[in-house]
Amino acid sequence: MSERREFRELTDPDVAHEIVDDLELDPAPERVSLTDARGRVLAERVDADLDVPGFDRASLDGYALRAKDTFGADEVDPARLDVIGVVHAGAEPDVELGEGEAVEISTGAVMPPGADAMVPVEQTDEERVDGQRTVLVRTAVAPGDNVMLAGADIAAGERALGPGTRLTAREIGLLSALGVNEVSVRGKPTVGIVSTGDELVRPGEPLNSDAGQIYDVNSYTIATAVEEAGGEPVLYPHAGDDYEEMERILIEAGEECDLVLSSGSTSASAVDVIYRVIEDRGELLLHGVAIKPGKPMLVGELPGGAYVGLPGYPVSAMMTFRVFVAPLVREAAGLPEPDSATLTGEMATEIRHDQGRRRLMPVGLVENAHGDRLVYPVDKGSGATTSLADADGLVTIGAETDYLAAGESVTVTLFSPDVRPPTLFGVGEDDPALSRLLDRLSNPRYLSIGTRQGLRRLREGVPDIVVTSGSASVDVEHEVLATWKREWGLIVPAGNPEGIEGIPDLVDRDLRLINRTTDSGLRTTLGEAVAELADERGTTRHELVESIDGFELAARAHESPARKVAAGAGDAGLGLRATATKLDLEFVPLGTETVRLLGNSDRMGKAGMSELRDALTAADSVLDGLAGYQ
Amino acid sequence: MSERREFRELTDPDVAHEIVDDLELDPAPERVSLTDARGRVLAERVDADLDVPGFDRASLDGYALRAKDTFGADEVDPARLDVIGVVHAGAEPDVELGEGEAVEISTGAVMPPGADAMVPVEQTDEERVDGQRTVLVRTAVAPGDNVMLAGADIAAGERALGPGTRLTAREIGLLSALGVNEVSVRGKPTVGIVSTGDELVRPGEPLNSDAGQIYDVNSYTIATAVEEAGGEPVLYPHAGDDYEEMERILIEAGEECDLVLSSGSTSASAVDVIYRVIEDRGELLLHGVAIKPGKPMLVGELPGGAYVGLPGYPVSAMMTFRVFVAPLVREAAGLPEPDSATLTGEMATEIRHDQGRRRLMPVGLVENAHGDRLVYPVDKGSGATTSLADADGLVTIGAETDYLAAGESVTVTLFSPDVRPPTLFGVGEDDPALSRLLDRLSNPRYLSIGTRQGLRRLREGVPDIVVTSGSASVDVEHEVLATWKREWGLIVPAGNPEGIEGIPDLVDRDLRLINRTTDSGLRTTLGEAVAELADERGTTRHELVESIDGFELAARAHESPARKVAAGAGDAGLGLRATATKLDLEFVPLGTETVRLLGNSDRMGKAGMSELRDALTAADSVLDGLAGYQ
Repeated sequence: MSERREFRELTDPDVAHEIVDDLELDPAPERVSLTDARGRVLAERVDADLDVPGFDRASLDGYALRAKDTFGADEVDPARLDVIGVVHAGAEPDVELGEGEAVEISTGAVMPPGADAMVPVEQTDEERVDGQRTVLVRTAVAPGDNVMLAGADIAAGERALGPGTRLTAREIGLLSALGVNEVSVRGKPTVGIVSTGDELVRPGEPLNSDAGQIYDVNSYTIATAVEEAGGEPVLYPHAGDDYEEMERILIEAGEECDLVLSSGSTSASAVDVIYRVIEDRGELLLHGVAIKPGKPMLVGELPGGAYVGLPGYPVSAMMTFRVFVAPLVREAAGLPEPDSATLTGEMATEIRHDQGRRRLMPVGLVENAHGDRLVYPVDKGSGATTSLADADGLVTIGAETDYLAAGESVTVTLFSPDVRPPTLFGVGEDDPALSRLLDRLSNPRYLSIGTRQGLRRLREGVPDIVVTSGSASVDVEHEVLATWKREWGLIVPAGNPEGIEGIPDLVDRDLRLINRTTDSGLRTTLGEAVAELADERGTTRHELVESIDGFELAARAHESPARKVAAGAGDAGLGLRATATKLDLEFVPLGTETVRLLGNSDRMGKAGMSELRDALTAADSVLDGLAGYQ
Repeated sequence: MSERREFRELTDPDVAHEIVDDLELDPAPERVSLTDARGRVLAERVDADLDVPGFDRASLDGYALRAKDTFGADEVDPARLDVIGVVHAGAEPDVELGEGEAVEISTGAVMPPGADAMVPVEQTDEERVDGQRTVLVRTAVAPGDNVMLAGADIAAGERALGPGTRLTAREIGLLSALGVNEVSVRGKPTVGIVSTGDELVRPGEPLNSDAGQIYDVNSYTIATAVEEAGGEPVLYPHAGDDYEEMERILIEAGEECDLVLSSGSTSASAVDVIYRVIEDRGELLLHGVAIKPGKPMLVGELPGGAYVGLPGYPVSAMMTFRVFVAPLVREAAGLPEPDSATLTGEMATEIRHDQGRRRLMPVGLVENAHGDRLVYPVDKGSGATTSLADADGLVTIGAETDYLAAGESVTVTLFSPDVRPPTLFGVGEDDPALSRLLDRLSNPRYLSIGTRQGLRRLREGVPDIVVTSGSASVDVEHEVLATWKREWGLIVPAGNPEGIEGIPDLVDRDLRLINRTTDSGLRTTLGEAVAELADERGTTRHELVESIDGFELAARAHESPARKVAAGAGDAGLGLRATATKLDLEFVPLGTETVRLLGNSDRMGKAGMSELRDALTAADSVLDGLAGYQ
């Protein structure tokens, strides 16, 4: 067994933050055209180079004139002026006004020489006699009235936008007013991402599961998170655990990028190889942080740029990036963290924590009927990639904190500023009709944790809805929002080669069943059917279960047993007629069971609940066309 | 004068919202690679197509074994198993376990056949005798311990992500785990932008101000706002007021885009031309809305797509887009408005409103020392492009509301979700040293409205700081944060061709002065110097002022008089030595005046104020290298 490196002295997390913050990413400013400038950050101040407007400008449609020619004019005794010409917007005046004269003028046109005010058309009448135009002005105006003087909006030499300004629509509008079509903006820090581990395969390429291959998750998660923080990710070819290859890739990435992140492998040997490259070729600043997760974090300098090694598990990598690295990238990009990137909520359940170490806890968010945000921990195990999508962010728990009470206020660091907490949070049984129902909601979250676990969560008061199947009794206040029936049975290969007709075949013959996990309501339903058969036969349920090969062999999702049967891993799988139809397998019906969609009584007033009710009462039912549903 | 169309029946704004919302933009879904998917919205549900992990996976480094071989094992009496092989991550096991056997295994590696559990290395010791490896297992494990079963994370057939899901880092992580490298996302609605008006010039092109040309602001503002709302802007060539040309461009844009916006012109004739094109070639759905601004808004259908005409003034166009059109674009893009796009605050001052019509009021935001957001109206006149940058968003005031009290709570619709309200809000005198100081702050807003207006705003309690010059007395509580002295005088052409030595030259000779506006503290200082001269001569200030040609000819910003002198528009301009130096002009000193940077006493605790104090006490002074400063 290779020597395994022990992390003896873990760095204090606050010190680790300082070390990371001190890394120098210094992207060079670049010039971009105005049409590419959105979201960028000005590298330097922009002063106005010209007056806006560049001329004295009529603010309305009407007549340009000399203010003193209107003194004393009113409705009863209008001033009468000769109209000696017209100025349209975008045209140079070709007349000069004298006493008693006026010029017709359009909004935005140049005030003709000699005019010092204008009167809007609504306060005038025009007479035309033998081609001679006369305007009757029914109001008196002062010099400057209805005229925007040159430079009145912004004058040449004025400070228009400061360095560090993030360019949104309004700033781009101001720049275009100044005639600026190119600006100097802060460069985006380039972040090289080196994924490590021999087992990783890029999405889209074929996967050999038998050889333990898995798709690379961290490279894509972190690349996206780099973009969200204002950086420019660069994906490097996959590095195995080989020293030479790792050295070559890390050095190359360090030379080409402002920051290099490695991520992907959970293998100690890959981490060891990186550690040695950094020690040999660069400088190691930190190895291991007293935070969970984050213990294996590495920080150093490569010849060309800074380096941070993230933990291998997806949720750990994401949280470590978010807490330690995203602020560094944002700082280099000149983009402060948006207010929307953190929010406060109250713990939905209590949390006990006896780490004696600071902890980053992935959490989900759910709103109650009053719009208060409740925070609940998400823990599917650190290897789970789905917990990335099941969590909205993280809560940092101090080393000295061993208990968070339900109702306690906590700050949630969202994974991305764009993360939208769900509009409706459901848990329980998985079901094809339910999936269709969820498709009709704007932003639901649903965790398929089975009937039993679902009901437990409802008792804790966290989810908005729970979906049960079978005859489970519900010992917590709830409202029944919908029920439907689904046909269940055994899914067998096309043509039913073993001629399976029901449970007795499984008990009496040498056939292999693929069952669901104990959390599944469908397994409970099967168990009840087995118990019934036991009654008929005058034996025990246990006895029969023992003689069904594979009764304990559990598969997680509603399609899993059928897929295993299709793959030849069993003779029959517990499942639904709809699944058999979808996967072109044969179905042996054993009965129908009821699926119940139950609402948390405290949440009936939520907007997401109204949307759910609308979806349930829509003209086209989610059951339409699903085999075996009613 | 051309016939001007009157808007006789204005549509109710709520009805206008319905008409706009009913426009059908239906961008076709597109397939994008995972690396381009950030921020996009899933067009359809993504179900898992494979189990994750795809195999039973060791969760830790250690030994794979049969659980029952460890029954009863503990520290005192460890189980002894033969180590018959090794499985690394990413490798296919080449051994099958029998009774009493173990296999060394890495985190993430495939569990070898025969093994049903694993023990972490920390709970073992290994002995090696003559090449024969034996592991001593100091704990008992149950089947499944430290193993992540195939599909435990997500199982084939499970619903992974629903339609309408916005893809952030976490969702992209989940997709990559599923091996998905391309997804079907909702198309971005294409929005054609047709700018109208003969007077508009694209930024970067030369401008003829004498001919009333101005830079096109709306096209760029609206294009950016379209992107911010999730659409794809397409800028069309400029259309003049010619019917044929307008028709051709509108029809082309309608065929190529989901939505066409026209914007840019404030001229009634351009609007008339568009109106006729829509009537002749498409369908006019709405003309004029009972909202200020928005009266000239047009809504219709072109042969190929929907059409909305925005008002011509930049702030009006922006507000109308934000309130009426952005929701339509967002809806088509599948992107709900982020929570950060609206916020609440309380009115900093009272507002009287006697429109009898709904009104969109541009507003700025400032935080007080307690972190409460104060909202103040921004009104530089509807033609001003700078008010775009001086405002953070808008407040909608109902037609029935004629008064908003100071302290009243209002909802602010931000121009963009990314708009960051300023960290410090200042008003008052403009000054080169102040501009440098502002450059050192993270996100200040400063309005150059002169000393007098600045002090008025301070009395109203709105700004954080005010900058005064000259001897203005301050009759409101404040703290003096900094003072500096600047040399002022007359700026004359290089070589001082008229040999100007001081104010007497202006009074006694036929010379033309370019003064500052009455709001400027510098003008007050000049006025005081003239009054002193009047005393010496035993005459009145008024008398002397009358004999200075151009004393009333005001220019807005501190560089404006100097620039006008440089352009030959005057013989001397009121200004600062620093400006003369910067613009390579000659300077005739008349005195020094004091610039005072005053803090609003109620705001001294703000974070922005600390940043200001840090900038003021920085080692390198903002005065360094500025001519005439001390």
